[in-house]
Amino acid sequence: MRSHYCGEVNESLIGQEVTLCGWVNRRRDLGGVIFLDLRDREGIVQVVYDPDIEDVFALANTLRNEFCVKVTGKVRPRPEGQINKEMASGGIELLGLQLEILNAAAPLPLDFNQQNSEEQRLRFRYLDLRRPEMSEKLKFRAKVTNEVRRFMEEAGFMDVETPILTAATPEGARDYLVPSRTHKGKFFALPQSPQLFKQLLMMSGVDRYYQIVKCFRDEDLRADRQPEFTQIDIETSFMSADQVMAVTEQMIRQLFTKLMNIDLGDFPRMTYEEAMRRFGSDKPDLRIPLELVDVAEQVKTVDFKVFAGPANDDNGRVAAIRVPAGADKFSRKQIDELGKFVGIYGAKGLAWMKINDRAAGLEGVQSPVAKFFSAEQMEALLAQTNAESGDILFFGADNKVVVTEAMGALRIKLGEDLGLVADEWRPLWVVDFPMFEEADGRAHALHHPFTAPSNATAAELEANPYGALSDAYDMVLNGCEVGGGSVRIHDQTMQATVFRILGISDEEAREKFGFLLDALQYGAPPHAGLAFGLDRLVMLMCGADTIRDVMAFPKTTTAACPLTDAPGKANPEQLVELGIALVAKEDAK
Amino acid sequence: MRSHYCGEVNESLIGQEVTLCGWVNRRRDLGGVIFLDLRDREGIVQVVYDPDIEDVFALANTLRNEFCVKVTGKVRPRPEGQINKEMASGGIELLGLQLEILNAAAPLPLDFNQQNSEEQRLRFRYLDLRRPEMSEKLKFRAKVTNEVRRFMEEAGFMDVETPILTAATPEGARDYLVPSRTHKGKFFALPQSPQLFKQLLMMSGVDRYYQIVKCFRDEDLRADRQPEFTQIDIETSFMSADQVMAVTEQMIRQLFTKLMNIDLGDFPRMTYEEAMRRFGSDKPDLRIPLELVDVAEQVKTVDFKVFAGPANDDNGRVAAIRVPAGADKFSRKQIDELGKFVGIYGAKGLAWMKINDRAAGLEGVQSPVAKFFSAEQMEALLAQTNAESGDILFFGADNKVVVTEAMGALRIKLGEDLGLVADEWRPLWVVDFPMFEEADGRAHALHHPFTAPSNATAAELEANPYGALSDAYDMVLNGCEVGGGSVRIHDQTMQATVFRILGISDEEAREKFGFLLDALQYGAPPHAGLAFGLDRLVMLMCGADTIRDVMAFPKTTTAACPLTDAPGKANPEQLVELGIALVAKEDAK
Repeated sequence: MRSHYCGEVNESLIGQEVTLCGWVNRRRDLGGVIFLDLRDREGIVQVVYDPDIEDVFALANTLRNEFCVKVTGKVRPRPEGQINKEMASGGIELLGLQLEILNAAAPLPLDFNQQNSEEQRLRFRYLDLRRPEMSEKLKFRAKVTNEVRRFMEEAGFMDVETPILTAATPEGARDYLVPSRTHKGKFFALPQSPQLFKQLLMMSGVDRYYQIVKCFRDEDLRADRQPEFTQIDIETSFMSADQVMAVTEQMIRQLFTKLMNIDLGDFPRMTYEEAMRRFGSDKPDLRIPLELVDVAEQVKTVDFKVFAGPANDDNGRVAAIRVPAGADKFSRKQIDELGKFVGIYGAKGLAWMKINDRAAGLEGVQSPVAKFFSAEQMEALLAQTNAESGDILFFGADNKVVVTEAMGALRIKLGEDLGLVADEWRPLWVVDFPMFEEADGRAHALHHPFTAPSNATAAELEANPYGALSDAYDMVLNGCEVGGGSVRIHDQTMQATVFRILGISDEEAREKFGFLLDALQYGAPPHAGLAFGLDRLVMLMCGADTIRDVMAFPKTTTAACPLTDAPGKANPEQLVELGIALVAKEDAK
Repeated sequence: MRSHYCGEVNESLIGQEVTLCGWVNRRRDLGGVIFLDLRDREGIVQVVYDPDIEDVFALANTLRNEFCVKVTGKVRPRPEGQINKEMASGGIELLGLQLEILNAAAPLPLDFNQQNSEEQRLRFRYLDLRRPEMSEKLKFRAKVTNEVRRFMEEAGFMDVETPILTAATPEGARDYLVPSRTHKGKFFALPQSPQLFKQLLMMSGVDRYYQIVKCFRDEDLRADRQPEFTQIDIETSFMSADQVMAVTEQMIRQLFTKLMNIDLGDFPRMTYEEAMRRFGSDKPDLRIPLELVDVAEQVKTVDFKVFAGPANDDNGRVAAIRVPAGADKFSRKQIDELGKFVGIYGAKGLAWMKINDRAAGLEGVQSPVAKFFSAEQMEALLAQTNAESGDILFFGADNKVVVTEAMGALRIKLGEDLGLVADEWRPLWVVDFPMFEEADGRAHALHHPFTAPSNATAAELEANPYGALSDAYDMVLNGCEVGGGSVRIHDQTMQATVFRILGISDEEAREKFGFLLDALQYGAPPHAGLAFGLDRLVMLMCGADTIRDVMAFPKTTTAACPLTDAPGKANPEQLVELGIALVAKEDAK
């Protein structure tokens, strides 16, 4: 129907007649002339209707916002004063010659000129997506997936589809279940990831696999999660961790160069141990120039149990964050609020010191806890933290986990509150994760049970599970984990050992993962892989506030869709066919 | 780990050392030398182990089929007599210098040298996929999706993901349901297609959308169906049916040229009426040179009720299929079996005539029904069917639906049984479908309720629903519907009218499709689209017998996965969380 997109009309077409289709973005009547901003996917063009062409002018006069129209007109330069250099089409306008109303529009339930509630935006998503800031995000996402695919194909990766209706997967979150009609009383699970299938594909000899694929987790949706999300899923045979990191790092770098003209450079690597020690996080945001400094050595002998206790405990940690020139940036009230903030992470309080005069030593320190320090102790502490006059120090002292988490979170908060987050891209790899962490008296896999140890035989692993490091790697960008992966176990004995350490009985292992254990005995190749969270990656790249803004039809935080009213009621016959019944709410308690 | 894929090793590398990773396809010991066929994704290479290198030879001696190994060797020409021109690497072999066993293999549960049961193949799918004929199909499928994406991107289509957890969709098959935990008693449905979402995307201004997307139908799986299948989903704004057909036809033609070096030429178009009349099918297989010929006019006055009844009934049909030179190809027993075959489609019998001597007229016809014909009547019939000496004619006489279906199916069967199916590609478009068909006294949409009529206003449609044609089009290839689509309704009044004709009450329409009706009033653009069944398309292109062979992990015909044992039991806590309970089998009756 059209000859051009709106965004394609520019000076090169002056004098020509073009036909455009799109929506009335705005209509203004000025000096007896109608000015129309016509919008389509590619941009906006100004159309002018003169009263000379009577019937067309009369029709143009009936247009309201968001009418869908077809316009034929002649491209001409805009008058001097009206040139808009911000717009691709800002140098020209269309003299409207013909006009066809393809569809009228009732007044919109969303006002594009103001903030609309999330609920309203989702209910009328098809209108919300008309806003250029939203449609640009969808377009950007499509470009990302297209570039990813192009890269992966060129690198010899093969796109293979894995099932959506499958067995429960081992990621550990809650599965979405799908009752089977042909096998009543049984359920499919929607995959939390195609982990086992991609490992099986390696055993099939696919060699290099990728897929951009939907995954599902029935979790409570705080923290900007969605019931269904999209993964760039990758697996390779006969590649080391270094090689997988190299190829996937290259992919991300190429995305940034091609789509944003940004060179991310080589990604530095940091061990998990260093990340937790210096940044209190396994996904450190390196844009923030604050660090955790361990001061246990310096406070071991201080006559203050809150410090000395953890400092003398193998499971304890005492760490400081120094905010340069921060002393006069925090009132008592503000510090109290920071204390409440670290409380969320289990910290029982937040000690602080303002360094009013570094040269004055203990005397120059303003702090409720200064009194517990001798001059020498204070000097050692100030030296260790590199404190200078005008700085403020915050302290966490407790068991390792609490201090690391709380001070890691405080570091981010201070960085954001004080505007210290640098406007830059700071990617890195976090490596050398422990294989297992202990909680509730038993071992848990830090990644998943199929991750291979990097430096241990099965016997060594069994002898000292908490000493073993895994061959896993996370890609972190500006404090977000955008991807994670590992070398997988391809040896049946090793896999059985890991299951045993995790307290998974042979019986349970066989029941849940018997097919994987079986598959390992038929010449399974060494293999490794990685998965990126596409939604989060796109969100970061296009600076969106939430992953909902880079999904066409996201769910609310209660996992509902105000547009289609999903989930909805099932009709009773369907439930009978499926062999299930609803449990009344009272009974369910 | 490797320097090359096996399939990449050829004469150009003679004299060089290469390292390969793969599986032992076969091991032979000949004259004190070990010959190994090493296999990876890209091909097979012969590796020779001489006893000179003692330790390597000893290790090679322990290899069994499907061991996963790493081989380093020197490329050399094969001795004269051993050159294999069928293989890419058939001119060379590798002198094995090093050998590493990456993983041993127990004896395989599948024998690659014989036919294995479908159940076994699916249970050990990861092994079945190692067979080159299977891995070639997966590779081919990946190439198809890659080419489709490349084409769509170049044509300005935007890849947008639509939800998998959604509301019931209107395709009319049974939905898979997913109980919601956060909204107990309610269910998501898995989409039978993204139909409504892609229409909404048009209303969002996406303009050109495509997606390669999983769809779901909980149907009984006879007829080579799968619970989840993949669709190439396409929708455009501001395009006519002709334009959508042009761009999608170009896509398919390009697929065939690029991947198979086959030029399909321009696709002919055929109306639904002609397809049903000449071929008894809305997806005619034009490779079969047999046609249905209407003979009602010729048998109206014959003294044989079976023929004359339907011939004189407006809802009846009498049709013949002429099999040239078929008279001596069918025994009475075989004809009886054909009679049973058409019985499946409701036909009460199968009349036939052998034309022993065309010149002898009635006298030359051998048939149980010849006696009912006068010489003139027979002459007219033979003339109408173009019968010649040596032909056989088969007849169907009943109501239109039965005759068309039964004779259409018989045409295919005769074509296949007699080896008449030409070895060629015969694509076509079927167009001008009726909007509605009548069954059980009410109207049903031939496509779906969002299909626009091609030649009627809302008022005209309501006045004469069964006379209206839709603006729909199916792409048919060798008797398979590979794609189907239509111009959609973009007018609220028209949409409401169609719902009314279909007997969908305003209340029901609002409850199910209220969001679509709403969306139509805010400047919905004219739009049209199409969806291809990717699995079937790939199956046709690579000559597979079933869509299961072009899917990595298909389900059985009872919708189960013997590999992962899905569907499986849910644990009771999960069901409590979901607010559902299993109904005991006895109660469910």
